[in-house]
Amino acid sequence: MNSEPRVTVWNEYRHEQSHPAVAAVYPQGIHAAIAEGLRRNGLTHVRTATLDEPEQGLSAAVLAETDVLTWWGHMAHGDVTDATVQRVRERVWDGMGLIVLHSGHYSKIFKALMGTPCELYWREADDHERIWVVDPGHPIAAGLPNHIEVGPEEMYGEHFDVPAPDHLVFISWFSGGEVFRSGCCYTRGSGKIFYFRPGHETYPTYFHADVRRVIANAARWAAPAGGPPPTPRPSDRPVPPLEPMSGY
Amino acid sequence: MNSEPRVTVWNEYRHEQSHPAVAAVYPQGIHAAIAEGLRRNGLTHVRTATLDEPEQGLSAAVLAETDVLTWWGHMAHGDVTDATVQRVRERVWDGMGLIVLHSGHYSKIFKALMGTPCELYWREADDHERIWVVDPGHPIAAGLPNHIEVGPEEMYGEHFDVPAPDHLVFISWFSGGEVFRSGCCYTRGSGKIFYFRPGHETYPTYFHADVRRVIANAARWAAPAGGPPPTPRPSDRPVPPLEPMSGY
Amino acid sequence: MNSEPRVTVWNEYRHEQSHPAVAAVYPQGIHAAIAEGLRRNGLTHVRTATLDEPEQGLSAAVLAETDVLTWWGHMAHGDVTDATVQRVRERVWDGMGLIVLHSGHYSKIFKALMGTPCELYWREADDHERIWVVDPGHPIAAGLPNHIEVGPEEMYGEHFDVPAPDHLVFISWFSGGEVFRSGCCYTRGSGKIFYFRPGHETYPTYFHADVRRVIANAARWAAPAGGPPPTPRPSDRPVPPLEPMSGY
Amino acid sequence: MNSEPRVTVWNEYRHEQSHPAVAAVYPQGIHAAIAEGLRRNGLTHVRTATLDEPEQGLSAAVLAETDVLTWWGHMAHGDVTDATVQRVRERVWDGMGLIVLHSGHYSKIFKALMGTPCELYWREADDHERIWVVDPGHPIAAGLPNHIEVGPEEMYGEHFDVPAPDHLVFISWFSGGEVFRSGCCYTRGSGKIFYFRPGHETYPTYFHADVRRVIANAARWAAPAGGPPPTPRPSDRPVPPLEPMSGY
Repeated sequence: MNSEPRVTVWNEYRHEQSHPAVAAVYPQGIHAAIAEGLRRNGLTHVRTATLDEPEQGLSAAVLAETDVLTWWGHMAHGDVTDATVQRVRERVWDGMGLIVLHSGHYSKIFKALMGTPCELYWREADDHERIWVVDPGHPIAAGLPNHIEVGPEEMYGEHFDVPAPDHLVFISWFSGGEVFRSGCCYTRGSGKIFYFRPGHETYPTYFHADVRRVIANAARWAAPAGGPPPTPRPSDRPVPPLEPMSGY
Repeated sequence: MNSEPRVTVWNEYRHEQSHPAVAAVYPQGIHAAIAEGLRRNGLTHVRTATLDEPEQGLSAAVLAETDVLTWWGHMAHGDVTDATVQRVRERVWDGMGLIVLHSGHYSKIFKALMGTPCELYWREADDHERIWVVDPGHPIAAGLPNHIEVGPEEMYGEHFDVPAPDHLVFISWFSGGEVFRSGCCYTRGSGKIFYFRPGHETYPTYFHADVRRVIANAARWAAPAGGPPPTPRPSDRPVPPLEPMSGY
Repeated sequence: MNSEPRVTVWNEYRHEQSHPAVAAVYPQGIHAAIAEGLRRNGLTHVRTATLDEPEQGLSAAVLAETDVLTWWGHMAHGDVTDATVQRVRERVWDGMGLIVLHSGHYSKIFKALMGTPCELYWREADDHERIWVVDPGHPIAAGLPNHIEVGPEEMYGEHFDVPAPDHLVFISWFSGGEVFRSGCCYTRGSGKIFYFRPGHETYPTYFHADVRRVIANAARWAAPAGGPPPTPRPSDRPVPPLEPMSGY
Repeated sequence: MNSEPRVTVWNEYRHEQSHPAVAAVYPQGIHAAIAEGLRRNGLTHVRTATLDEPEQGLSAAVLAETDVLTWWGHMAHGDVTDATVQRVRERVWDGMGLIVLHSGHYSKIFKALMGTPCELYWREADDHERIWVVDPGHPIAAGLPNHIEVGPEEMYGEHFDVPAPDHLVFISWFSGGEVFRSGCCYTRGSGKIFYFRPGHETYPTYFHADVRRVIANAARWAAPAGGPPPTPRPSDRPVPPLEPMSGY
């Protein structure tokens, strides 16, 4: 628990290579900006991985060395293979943390872990976004002011079709008239999951100091806790009584 | 909300036809015993459906007329088609209630809605089961004593690999030394889901008055509430600002 | 569960008699407007009670005949006696529903049941309030659109210092830049509690059809469920083993 | 977050001085055994305090230097002054962690923070207690097996009249036929609270390695997270709009 978690920052990395407007904001890719933010917040084991690398950047070997995975995807959700999704999902069940960012709400892996459509309303219109802390005692709120002034962003509005989070840490306000549950904590198997809303590819949101602080806090919070192993899979055999049966 | 929900009691209905010991307990099938229990508790719109019927008993027409679906399956989980699972899942998202019974914890539909392996420990050894009420104010506990004396049953033990329930209504005690979260409430989309543990095919559990009361209470609790429709699927277009943008 | 709950609408009833601006909005008192809204939504057993009545309108006899109590107070929280608070609290623990409205967040009874300061930020500046449904499957959202257009209201902003709600049904958006968890469900003992934000005394909010619908839905949701009695109080003696001790 | 929290182990310390049977088990007092267990698990800033010390061992100065307070009380709950309760409660609201042990369920401070009677069923009959982990990914389960074999203990049974915990980490099994929610997490204000069941004064439970591990894990989990300060108390004035009002 005391050593820093090993974080793999995964990015689809397509917009940056196909859309000059995005490349202008993230010349090294969104993953580079996120990784830099983690390092500046003291995370000492940070690597990146992208969709077009072998095994989509997420081989069993890479996942085995990953305590927390951050996920950014948007235009290529459909290119992520079911095999990749299954490898990631099983690692989450076994304890790996997963931080899903912005349009990752619609990724195969997030939908597979939530069990819901994960739909929402959205609008690209330079709404002003402000993110309010609604659980100031939560580790993910460490070092933050009572709200984060994000500035212009894509709007995401309710109803966000996810299960009620185990903890709701943030709620976004948008100038166009909407609200959104922006910081949602879940557990699946032994793995902790955090969904964090901001980060549309055309805005420099991942350079924002408070946004970076949130992602770093989430990486520490989501690191494997070291509890007992999850139930053996598959549960293909019975267990003996732990005690001699009492006389019923 | 005041009229009784339309309940479809679905059963795999294989053990009863292949295992004389099960047929001896449930000569008309587990579904018949569950349906009778619902009717005796005042549910007035109860039908049954089984796996070997056309469209596996769960056609779009049947689902469209179902407010709450109860699910019992065990030896044939693998025979339920992905198409059936998808039809049921979308109806749940749109508001249909789902009551998953006993070994249904390992069904495709339950795993798809939970996003976890749904594994557990188990033992067939005539453990004595007692189910304790831990949320006496919950509608599913209506009319119950502070615990249900089930008697001999198959043991299910923790860790039960599901998401933490939105409400935990029951916890089981087993004489062999285990406990189990036996009554778990969830919401997925607009649909309410209740998992209820007891009901191994070789025990007459679905004739137990308190067990029947729980299933009837759950059917009323899980009926569609009539709220706003869920977010349109797919969310394939932006929404206009609900208000003229303020001057940021 | 099928018959309509007996609702007592309690109001401090001071502003209406001391502030002409409030009397102009609620000439018969806030309680009259709330009671009318409940009746128009089909509640058939609705009475009102106010602070300056004998026993502060909440005698043991009145409470014994009350399934759900709605609470509006603001300027006279300090005048509510500890004896009244204790009578109400014990009835909640025994199963009575409690709906706390607007400035009731700062009432003795709400703070005693929450265990927190129940503070918030506020502003009287005719902010525009819009209330978003974030749990469309919840009974309290029955019959609502995906958001309620309240219009000008007093602003309440986060952090709202309450325990994380068991269910969060609504989130408010305010034009001045804040958000607020506007519809919060809790259980204390066997009693259900719903906090609902809108209703400052200088605005005609309790005449709003959707606001009235919410309060009526909440009254039905909060009605006693009829489960097993709570643990005897005081627990002044041991219980015998429910089974002969096994041989440990 | 990285440095070890400052823990104050508070004990009523009456049984040990008045009951030889208890003194035989805890010759230096229950607090000494708990403090030793924390130190053996790597906590480096551990102090003890008892009821009969000045200001009941919990002066403003002591509390100001306390990140996490552990509480054991039983026969003298009534001797704890309201002033002490209020000092502790306000520190919890401001972020201090609180770990309530065994019969502390019935302490003034726990009841004041829960808002419920906190009653339960109990029996002193050498029941065998086994504690099951039901949330293996939670930090409080770090380093544990899938269950803790406690051995003979006082029985606590459901219904335990507390709010549904934000996280349920443990469930106890008792040989006499009961279950109990043994590890319950809450947040009040910015402070985290953990209730842990075992530890009757006549059993050597606080010398049990796994029980000690749980209390040490809980101390680390409950340490202040360093988030934004809670809402100012009292909220006696309005806040200005954070933005120029939009044009409603």
